[in-house]
Amino acid sequence: MRDKLKKILSSNEWERFIIAIILINSVTLGLETSPEIMQMMGPVLLTIDRAILTIFVVEIAARLYTFRLAFFRDPWSIFDFSIVAIALIPATGPFQVLRALRILRLLRLISIVPSLRRVIGGLISALPGMGSIIVLLFMLFYVSAVMATKLYGESFPDWFGNLGASTYSLFQIMTLESWSMGIVRPVMEVHPYAWMFFVPFILLSTYSVLNLFIGVIVSAMQEQSMADTDADLKTLHVDNADLLREMQALRSEIAALRAERSATGA
Amino acid sequence: MRDKLKKILSSNEWERFIIAIILINSVTLGLETSPEIMQMMGPVLLTIDRAILTIFVVEIAARLYTFRLAFFRDPWSIFDFSIVAIALIPATGPFQVLRALRILRLLRLISIVPSLRRVIGGLISALPGMGSIIVLLFMLFYVSAVMATKLYGESFPDWFGNLGASTYSLFQIMTLESWSMGIVRPVMEVHPYAWMFFVPFILLSTYSVLNLFIGVIVSAMQEQSMADTDADLKTLHVDNADLLREMQALRSEIAALRAERSATGA
Amino acid sequence: MRDKLKKILSSNEWERFIIAIILINSVTLGLETSPEIMQMMGPVLLTIDRAILTIFVVEIAARLYTFRLAFFRDPWSIFDFSIVAIALIPATGPFQVLRALRILRLLRLISIVPSLRRVIGGLISALPGMGSIIVLLFMLFYVSAVMATKLYGESFPDWFGNLGASTYSLFQIMTLESWSMGIVRPVMEVHPYAWMFFVPFILLSTYSVLNLFIGVIVSAMQEQSMADTDADLKTLHVDNADLLREMQALRSEIAALRAERSATGA
Amino acid sequence: MRDKLKKILSSNEWERFIIAIILINSVTLGLETSPEIMQMMGPVLLTIDRAILTIFVVEIAARLYTFRLAFFRDPWSIFDFSIVAIALIPATGPFQVLRALRILRLLRLISIVPSLRRVIGGLISALPGMGSIIVLLFMLFYVSAVMATKLYGESFPDWFGNLGASTYSLFQIMTLESWSMGIVRPVMEVHPYAWMFFVPFILLSTYSVLNLFIGVIVSAMQEQSMADTDADLKTLHVDNADLLREMQALRSEIAALRAERSATGA
Repeated sequence: MRDKLKKILSSNEWERFIIAIILINSVTLGLETSPEIMQMMGPVLLTIDRAILTIFVVEIAARLYTFRLAFFRDPWSIFDFSIVAIALIPATGPFQVLRALRILRLLRLISIVPSLRRVIGGLISALPGMGSIIVLLFMLFYVSAVMATKLYGESFPDWFGNLGASTYSLFQIMTLESWSMGIVRPVMEVHPYAWMFFVPFILLSTYSVLNLFIGVIVSAMQEQSMADTDADLKTLHVDNADLLREMQALRSEIAALRAERSATGA
Repeated sequence: MRDKLKKILSSNEWERFIIAIILINSVTLGLETSPEIMQMMGPVLLTIDRAILTIFVVEIAARLYTFRLAFFRDPWSIFDFSIVAIALIPATGPFQVLRALRILRLLRLISIVPSLRRVIGGLISALPGMGSIIVLLFMLFYVSAVMATKLYGESFPDWFGNLGASTYSLFQIMTLESWSMGIVRPVMEVHPYAWMFFVPFILLSTYSVLNLFIGVIVSAMQEQSMADTDADLKTLHVDNADLLREMQALRSEIAALRAERSATGA
Repeated sequence: MRDKLKKILSSNEWERFIIAIILINSVTLGLETSPEIMQMMGPVLLTIDRAILTIFVVEIAARLYTFRLAFFRDPWSIFDFSIVAIALIPATGPFQVLRALRILRLLRLISIVPSLRRVIGGLISALPGMGSIIVLLFMLFYVSAVMATKLYGESFPDWFGNLGASTYSLFQIMTLESWSMGIVRPVMEVHPYAWMFFVPFILLSTYSVLNLFIGVIVSAMQEQSMADTDADLKTLHVDNADLLREMQALRSEIAALRAERSATGA
Repeated sequence: MRDKLKKILSSNEWERFIIAIILINSVTLGLETSPEIMQMMGPVLLTIDRAILTIFVVEIAARLYTFRLAFFRDPWSIFDFSIVAIALIPATGPFQVLRALRILRLLRLISIVPSLRRVIGGLISALPGMGSIIVLLFMLFYVSAVMATKLYGESFPDWFGNLGASTYSLFQIMTLESWSMGIVRPVMEVHPYAWMFFVPFILLSTYSVLNLFIGVIVSAMQEQSMADTDADLKTLHVDNADLLREMQALRSEIAALRAERSATGA
């Protein structure tokens, strides 16, 4: 029974079926955003939605039954599990916002389609190599937020009133959105030397983020290109190994010749 | 007759003639935008325009007659065909906007000048390799548009009233244009936690687009540089093959020597 | 006594202790930005702050006593020294702004954690190679600031009234923030040809900064990748050296064979 | 006399003298922007300025006398000549703007300092390789400007009233400055499908410019890195050539051995 289920769950047909279900669900969830369409065919859409959710729950249950604890060892399974779990929480009262999260089911495509999974996996595996820059960026934001709150919090409470507001404003400044006309020029009317704080912050933060982004992109690409170059170098290596073997055969040939000669010459 | 036409159509003189016609037409279409110039020499410009259109139609007809169905197998021919076809639709009533599309004829330069065709071809051929990132970006936009419409559609119908409006607003946010002062700060006054939706969206979308753009650029460049390195490695390969052949000749020489020796020594 | 101190100061336990102290201090300094928390537990936070500052002063004093003048030869020591020294200046009157600088102590993490120190060191060591571009960027800004002040200073004193204001405005224009709607369109209403100054400035400055940023990032990455390729090439080199040695052994073998033969054949 | 002049003009002392003169002039021209300083020491600054201009004129005259027509074959000499020539045009009436161009003299540093000259030369020499992309970008702007003028010129004459205004607005849109809130959203209120024109324009233009900028930067860097890799590959090449020579010596040795043997065995 478990083996049979396993076979079904990892078959191509099942995979294609789930992909189809996900795509259909994404379309119905998209249609649900339109009040006109909801008025026309709301009940149909909601029925489809509930049916698809049932399929998802059954599928996850089947995978849990089949793979048992191994299920939780695969991060993609946990990803699928959480996305389905969100849909089961009753979305009432303060949880109404969870209704909007149902469209996240489309992301299950990532865990099913291998090429998408590889891209996301590549990006995630490149992050640890970027650890130092991420820590530095975090430090830059924390230090700057504390300083901005202390320096400009009183005069501009909307922007720098507390650590959270400062962090958000600094993020906006880092993206260069209205940083000067919107934020720094008004601040400079009260604190004329504010540019000494904001200009270095812009230079450091944009540089760090560019470094981080390009670092991840390049490391993902290099992995690919390194593999190619390595293959080329390996060929050369094998070439040389061929030569060396040929040479050693030659040498033993000559040694044999010499030994023979000594024997007959004696 | 067909062979003669083929010869003419693929001659350098004809190519240069068409390039000249395209450039002249681009200038006249540019001049047509100025009301003063139109008042002065409007009829002349329109006559030139009609004459050039006639030449284009004749050229396409000749190519259709010459290459028959093969004409439609070359995507650049279809490109030329569509651009000329647009000019033949009567531009009245709701189609008046098509008059503005006549300047697209300048793009026929791309299909004629080989170096331009190569650049565009290179960019297009790099796209399939980026397929996964394009799919992910599309998913990111669809998921975010559905969520934004559900979450903020009621309070801000101009920006997030329906899927189309949300997609446009998210595109604007992705380009970082007025995202904070113009959109997110006003939204946060109603939904204080809106930043939890928009800040991750900005990080993911800008990162994906950067990844996509740099991916296409680098893959186009690498093709060039790979070719160079491959040539270098091939030379080394050939070097090694020379060595191996030399070595095998040597070995057979020695084997012959030994065989001879055995024969005479016997 | 000095040797014992040296041992303690460079022990892993001491390092971890200082890291912990820095992190605790960063949290307390962050909490100090909130008036509510200050009202609740202000004296506690300030006591902790003073205690930690004492530890820092003692640590720097111990390192000064241990390493004497060698202390000032390590730029990271001077960095630590300055950060602690800032905290000792009485932060009253015009120096009140220095209170905000106390959070810079978090940056001491950089001088302690080796991986962070390496990243910063890598960035700094890449700067000299970018010297020419930095000089060109500085020249571009100086020339443009002088020109902008002369051309638009009278009409727009807020933006271009003096060299400082012009430099700040040009920096804003370089970051593309509100450059057109905010600055250049208003300027063009008085000086219609202002775009001839600003558009080239935008092209040159954004290009130079991109060049500078990418230059530093790539040179830091290349150092890493060059090391890898070099290792590969070195392997091939060694391969070839093996072959050569084998070949020479072979040759002397044959020479010996020939010498023997001549001896016996005589 | 000419030889003596040539020697002086190409001596290190003369070069350093001119660099010093340029830097002093840049400072005085910077000081001239401040009305307070001009009131205090205006006559002094103007006298220095005139003296330095005299030195420049004399230097250019000396170089013209020394190198004659060869002077005009070096583009950097023409660059120096034009910058000094600008200063000699009487800056009155409509030419008053030329007074602001005097600070361009600082750019003479580029033609004197070799490392700066090399950077600029590298950038300029990378441009021809980017020819196709520059042509495509130019075509994109021309086609879009004509279309925008036709489509939106009547409703928004300030932004798209004629080809020049449209080109400027499109440049602003390409830099993403206020493209949506400032331009496209207002346009969409009149022409609801305007996004079908502007969004593709943004994608194509930002992509092309990124391609152009990165292309130039990478090609300048690759030149450097290619040189390094080539050197490595050349070493391997030489290694292999050594092996081949050794092998051929070995073969002739054995051939000699065999020939000897045949002679004695006969």
